[in-house]
This record gives sequence, C-alpha cells and structure tokens, in this order.
Amino acid sequence: MTALQSPFARKLGAFVALSATEITAIDKLHARKKQFPAGRDIVHQGQTNQSAYILASGWACSYKLLTGGTRQIVDFQIPGDFLGLRSVLFRTSDHNIEPVTQLEASEVLASDLLETFSNTPRLATAMLWAASRDEAMVVEHLVGIGRRDAKERTAHFLLELGARLKLVGLGTTSGYDCPLSQYLLADALGLSAVHVNRVLRELREEGLVTFQHGHVEIHDLDALVLLADFDKTYLDHDGPLLK
Amino acid sequence: MTALQSPFARKLGAFVALSATEITAIDKLHARKKQFPAGRDIVHQGQTNQSAYILASGWACSYKLLTGGTRQIVDFQIPGDFLGLRSVLFRTSDHNIEPVTQLEASEVLASDLLETFSNTPRLATAMLWAASRDEAMVVEHLVGIGRRDAKERTAHFLLELGARLKLVGLGTTSGYDCPLSQYLLADALGLSAVHVNRVLRELREEGLVTFQHGHVEIHDLDALVLLADFDKTYLDHDGPLLK
Repeated sequence: MTALQSPFARKLGAFVALSATEITAIDKLHARKKQFPAGRDIVHQGQTNQSAYILASGWACSYKLLTGGTRQIVDFQIPGDFLGLRSVLFRTSDHNIEPVTQLEASEVLASDLLETFSNTPRLATAMLWAASRDEAMVVEHLVGIGRRDAKERTAHFLLELGARLKLVGLGTTSGYDCPLSQYLLADALGLSAVHVNRVLRELREEGLVTFQHGHVEIHDLDALVLLADFDKTYLDHDGPLLK
Repeated sequence: MTALQSPFARKLGAFVALSATEITAIDKLHARKKQFPAGRDIVHQGQTNQSAYILASGWACSYKLLTGGTRQIVDFQIPGDFLGLRSVLFRTSDHNIEPVTQLEASEVLASDLLETFSNTPRLATAMLWAASRDEAMVVEHLVGIGRRDAKERTAHFLLELGARLKLVGLGTTSGYDCPLSQYLLADALGLSAVHVNRVLRELREEGLVTFQHGHVEIHDLDALVLLADFDKTYLDHDGPLLK
C-alpha cells in the first residue's frame, strides 16, 4: 500500500485489503497504456468487439443517444473507474464514452479479466463490488431525476463526485478540481444549462458550495448533506470489508 | 444443460457455456432456501449485515425511500436475479427489497461468493456480467425517466421485462405473466397510476400490447420495438460469449 498505487488499486483496496500478489495482478492490468484526446468518443454505442479500459488519469463521460437526437449522460468516470466494461462483457456496446479531458487509460480484454480472476479470486469479489457501486451510482442518478428537485439533485451530484474523488486521492471533504462544463452537468442532471447556472448561483449565495473556474469548494458540508439527503454508504465504508 | 436448471444457471449460462463443475457450484449456492410472504420487506435501507439472495421463484421490487416519503422503484427482480447483492458487498444496504408475490430465494453470503470464485473463476466473470447487465437496466430506466415520454417508457419497460423473462424460460416473444399492479408500474416509471392506466389503454387500442388480468400479450412486436426505440443488446446475445 504505497502512495504510488494506481487509482484503480486504491479503489479496490477500499474493499479488499490487497496482498502483494493482488497488487502485482492489478499492475499487470495496466500494461497496455493508451492516450486519448478530449472530445473524441473512444467507445461507440452499437459497435462490437471493443476493449474496456481502466482510467488512469483524466475524466470521461458515458452517455446514450436517443433516436430523436437528445442525449442523456449516465455518469462521469474518474481515475480508477472502468470505461466500457460492458463493451467487453457484452458483444455490443450499449453506450458511448467520450473523454472530457485528455486521458490515459489501460486496455483490458475479457481474457485479462478471466486470468486475473483465476489467479487472484478476491479481486473478482472486489471488481463485483466496484460494478455494484457503479450500479448504485446510476440508481442515485435515477432517483435524482425521478424524485429530487434541481437543487437537491445538483447538491447530491457534487457530494457524490467529492466522495468518489476522495477515495482515489483526488479530493478532500472541502473540495476538488472538476473539469465539467455547465453543459455537461445539464445533460447529466436532466436540466438546461441556464437552470444549472441558476442552481449553482443559489447554492453559492446560500454559502453551501461554490463551483467556479474548474474547482468545487464545499463551504458547509453538513448543510449540503442535509439538503441533498446524501448518504454515502453506497460509495464508501470505513476500512476494507475483506481483510 | 437440462430443463431442470435453476433460473440463475440459465441466466449465467447465457454468458458462459457452463461445465458440469460450474453447474454443481451454482447448485451449491442454492443450498439455503427460504420462503418470503408478499408485501413484507426482506432487505431494509440502512440495515447492516444483511444476506443476499438468489431469487428462485416469484417477483420482488427494489426501491428507495426519500426523506419526503416518496419512493422510487429502481427495478423489479425476477427468478434468476440477485436480491440485495449490494447488501452483502457493502456493509449497509442502500435500498429496500419487497416481495411483490410470495417468493422462494436462496441465501448467499460474501464467503459463498468468494469460495465460488476461487473454485470456478469463470463464474466470477459470469456474475460480473450479470451485475453489469443489472446496471445496464438501471441505465435504461434512467434514460427512460430522463428522456422518453410516458408511452415510449412504458413500451420499453414491457419489452425489457419480456426479454428478461424469456431468458430464464418464463415468457415468449408473444407474452408473459406479470403480477405487477398499476401502482407498482407507476412508481417504477415515475408516472401516476391514472397516467399508467391511460397509457396502457392507448397501447392496447393501437393494437400494440395488452396488459390485463396479470398477463402481457404482445400483438405487434416490431411496432412496439420501433415505438420504444428498444435495442435488446444490453440484455441478451445469441449464444454464450465464454465457450
């Protein structure tokens, strides 16, 4: 457990106390590193036989395009997250992945996963946990769009991002760097960019949180948690579950 | 591969061509069978140290309660699905599970999963696939609530249920039995029960699909798929990916 661990290892380490063998197995999954420029999709809805990637640095977003041309951003991916895991587990990708910033990611094939699971089965449990956590985040976004008003939804979203970034060493409870534009936020939250702008101004004027110039600063964590009805148990826990 | 296989084995078998050893390992996960009556939650939001279950027969629903008292149904579970997998992978459950009908389910502990993954690592890949498929369904519900109108959303939901039931041998492309009330449908689709009733009547009068007396009958599959913009690649594929 060193400061030089990959974000992916830090994330899985929150679930499984990693042995030296397990850390080596995770390092091996990072063998084929690739660079991707911002703005050009790396996984396409409907394409077959694509690779999955583990994100090492940078931000991405996964989204679906509908027939009418509207899009729904499903989630943003940060370092330590899988990109396009379903593209390798299914034959056909059901979504697009676009780099929000320039990013570095390691290519992972289905055979790499199978080999990892054979040699280090605890990592299979850890990855199942990570996949369940991804699902839990989509559930929160569903609940947000279905049942939370614009302000609660935005507050919840900023708190969730903060907790995720903190787990991989890219933020603290008082703030984090965030490259997302208000247009991207709008497509994720099911709001217009104008509406997002107004909500962010309200949150700032109420002394809760400021999102400006690529940085989120949380002024009053407790009040923000209360407003958003944010319960971080779906993201995190105190110490690994598998010792 | 016999007709007597559990729904869970049928589901995983869609992803991995199961060996005799793997089928035995799956059977072993079904050792601790329990019965649950309809209407009483078996997993509670916020409870700790709960078990997970594999559903053998009956229907359940997973939902979240919000502070204001509203609820959002995240998904319904049918035979072959996990109930509360996140309850065992996380320390605390982030959602509730309520049996819609009387149901039979097998208790699974984290240690059972770890043992299964150690002995039969291909099943780890299969379960990761199943978890990703669950996530893909939640993504579709998110897109539905965010971007589809009430009729498209309802049509998509009925088609998805049909494809899921067909995979575990409980339906055909022309129809399936469905115990869900219009109130449950409403809480899943983010509509009122009155609105659901109207949408179902429209779908019936247009000769697309009839949902009455606990049975869904699909009259015009192609037209329904077109209306819902339904692409089943996130649920299913032709033959197992891991031979």
